[in-house]
Amino acid sequence: MERVGIALLGYGTVGSGVGALLREEAEEIRLATGRDVYLRRVLELPGYSHPDLDPALVIHDFAEIEGDPEIGIVVELIGGVGVAFDFQMRALKAGKHVVTANKQLLAQQGAALLEVADAGGVHLRFEASVCGAIPVIKVVRESLAAAEVASIFGIVNGTTNYILSAMSQTGAQYDDVLKQAQDLGYAEADPTEDVTGKDAAAKMAILASAGFHSRITLADVPHEGVVGITATDVEHGKDLGLTLKLLGVAKLIHGKVTVRVYPAFLPADHPLASVSGAYNAVFLESDSFDRIMLFGPGAGGRPTASAVIGDIISVVNTVQTGFRNCTCYKTLAFASDDDVISTFYLRLHVADRPGALARLTTVFGEEQVSIRSVRQAGRGEEAELVMVFHPVTEAAFARALARIESLPEVLDKPAVIRVEGGYEG
Amino acid sequence: MERVGIALLGYGTVGSGVGALLREEAEEIRLATGRDVYLRRVLELPGYSHPDLDPALVIHDFAEIEGDPEIGIVVELIGGVGVAFDFQMRALKAGKHVVTANKQLLAQQGAALLEVADAGGVHLRFEASVCGAIPVIKVVRESLAAAEVASIFGIVNGTTNYILSAMSQTGAQYDDVLKQAQDLGYAEADPTEDVTGKDAAAKMAILASAGFHSRITLADVPHEGVVGITATDVEHGKDLGLTLKLLGVAKLIHGKVTVRVYPAFLPADHPLASVSGAYNAVFLESDSFDRIMLFGPGAGGRPTASAVIGDIISVVNTVQTGFRNCTCYKTLAFASDDDVISTFYLRLHVADRPGALARLTTVFGEEQVSIRSVRQAGRGEEAELVMVFHPVTEAAFARALARIESLPEVLDKPAVIRVEGGYEG
Repeated sequence: MERVGIALLGYGTVGSGVGALLREEAEEIRLATGRDVYLRRVLELPGYSHPDLDPALVIHDFAEIEGDPEIGIVVELIGGVGVAFDFQMRALKAGKHVVTANKQLLAQQGAALLEVADAGGVHLRFEASVCGAIPVIKVVRESLAAAEVASIFGIVNGTTNYILSAMSQTGAQYDDVLKQAQDLGYAEADPTEDVTGKDAAAKMAILASAGFHSRITLADVPHEGVVGITATDVEHGKDLGLTLKLLGVAKLIHGKVTVRVYPAFLPADHPLASVSGAYNAVFLESDSFDRIMLFGPGAGGRPTASAVIGDIISVVNTVQTGFRNCTCYKTLAFASDDDVISTFYLRLHVADRPGALARLTTVFGEEQVSIRSVRQAGRGEEAELVMVFHPVTEAAFARALARIESLPEVLDKPAVIRVEGGYEG
Repeated sequence: MERVGIALLGYGTVGSGVGALLREEAEEIRLATGRDVYLRRVLELPGYSHPDLDPALVIHDFAEIEGDPEIGIVVELIGGVGVAFDFQMRALKAGKHVVTANKQLLAQQGAALLEVADAGGVHLRFEASVCGAIPVIKVVRESLAAAEVASIFGIVNGTTNYILSAMSQTGAQYDDVLKQAQDLGYAEADPTEDVTGKDAAAKMAILASAGFHSRITLADVPHEGVVGITATDVEHGKDLGLTLKLLGVAKLIHGKVTVRVYPAFLPADHPLASVSGAYNAVFLESDSFDRIMLFGPGAGGRPTASAVIGDIISVVNTVQTGFRNCTCYKTLAFASDDDVISTFYLRLHVADRPGALARLTTVFGEEQVSIRSVRQAGRGEEAELVMVFHPVTEAAFARALARIESLPEVLDKPAVIRVEGGYEG
């Protein structure tokens, strides 16, 4: 029986999970592949040791991996866009297949890596980089390869989904919930990448590239996070039958593509609305397959390691004819704010003076932004207005909003949240 | 560019959908595979014609397909276990890959077909046989190949899910909703296979075979349908925070397997509970990947055709080394009613005489069946008891139930419904 040696770069939560699964599921992997897939080397910084790891497997110099003919697959779990890029490149050029969970690298340097992989006839697989254990990349790249995907909605960041779920359940404010999430290990000490939407944007770039067959990088994905979200808006949403999620939204609009990340309200009965806690889900729409949703754990050492194992098995099991890692064979233009149509929720804090509402509605009317509903909650001299609009271009709404913000009766910065998922209000 | 000819057996809803997608998505398929995949022949009964089909492609003799070297893939959409079996066998023996949506054939004769396919080094793919457009077979066979799947819960029949969703939303009785479903085209004129659970049982046999790597056939899957379901039980479930679904349930219990189909209550916040209408979903649990759910349309010409196209692309794109269609490399024993532990809901119609409840509870106590909750709704001389039990073996509950049914104060046949999904009542 042929043996396939695995080199692990990094032995943190995911790496040790991969090591454990390679041991525990050795027999399953042998049955599934007909090969003996085993841990051959672990690249780790000098000075680190791990109780579950044979020290004889640990090396500190990547050159030992490049030159080892026993190593068929390099699993990069270092993360980041620095040394990880060099190691992946060197591995691919040395004829090793690469499996990785590195979303930022894929989202920023994926094109260069895929090109080298294709040129060398080796695999570059990255299921674990998006939505942990959920096999969304495989499904999009293989099962839906020929389907014209119309839209991809994703809850692709577990930390922010945990935060928004907790805010919705408890009515607590963002800062308190974030603190609690950090205490429980659902948010990192520095949560910037998660709460600003950058993590979600990287994943959406990878997903949209696979779904639309066009190269989309992190820089192409405008992203807002959850930092400004208030319990007030979560509550108003509930009153409207809406659930707040941080959504990645990728759409084809008349042949142009838009990929964005923003907090969005969904109808409470939308399949994505019930995805709570640290779970992820991706919702795909198409004329050919209707709608498909994939749900599962978005992170965690064990589930992410499971996705890495799935990729390892795919690599071992499959030699593709007409081999091609890169499925971005189209070059789609990006939609502008004049192309993208959104439904907006707006909360305004206004001075309750005569004619205030009339002035507001006049501005919206002049900018062709049509109001669907208004709720007013007075509080003495001031009032809170919660407005939902009919679908309108991003550009038109931005123009109206700029004018509204400059009106003297508008007291604070308005809260703006998009509404997705076919809200019929 | 190499060309791959497709032969379609059957040109009904799914077949014409496959034909349409082969035309409309020809360019996408070419980009995804590097080949020119085209409709070469359609086997149809004499006398049938289709406006969207070039009559020159239509043949009536399967031998023309066997002998045609241009045909690489035979797509069997005739259904049933008769001629379809012969055609699949002949195609495989002629060195053609086979793609099919035929669940009954796979569930009953899958082993024989897979053996011939493996021997000939050709693919037998059947994604479209389970859950329409949802790529659950691919995910289970490939992404989760080495994962030890602990359980598979499936809403795998759209007709019954439509019926139960409608009963829940409207409070209507089964017969009325079935009639409506037939009028709307969600149920067939003869709905027997759907409403008895046989359709779901065939799909669960296929799914469980893939998930547990052991051969499970339709005959191994005890199945109950939705025929006896009453609006009363749907309502009582709602009061308990439970949603009624027809579930396929496959579990590994200490190395033994059980696969069953029955109506079951789920907690209303379970991800499967919100799968409504004609949609399907499959929920998988494992120590390694936690929980994954796949959701989508369970039937329909276009979505099912989309799954067929996905399989065609997989076949064209992939040559496996150590080629094996059959992943049932284990032989697991089946769990008995002494191994399977379930939570039961029971509704009894009892004469309201002194000591009746005491006699009931005595029987349950003697059979070690422990009551979690009882609700009584009196109606004059008679009472309705709704009981939920603590988890208990199927065997113990069956013994208790047999004794209960024979008590003189129990007036009608009791309604028994299992409760799944971690109900904490």
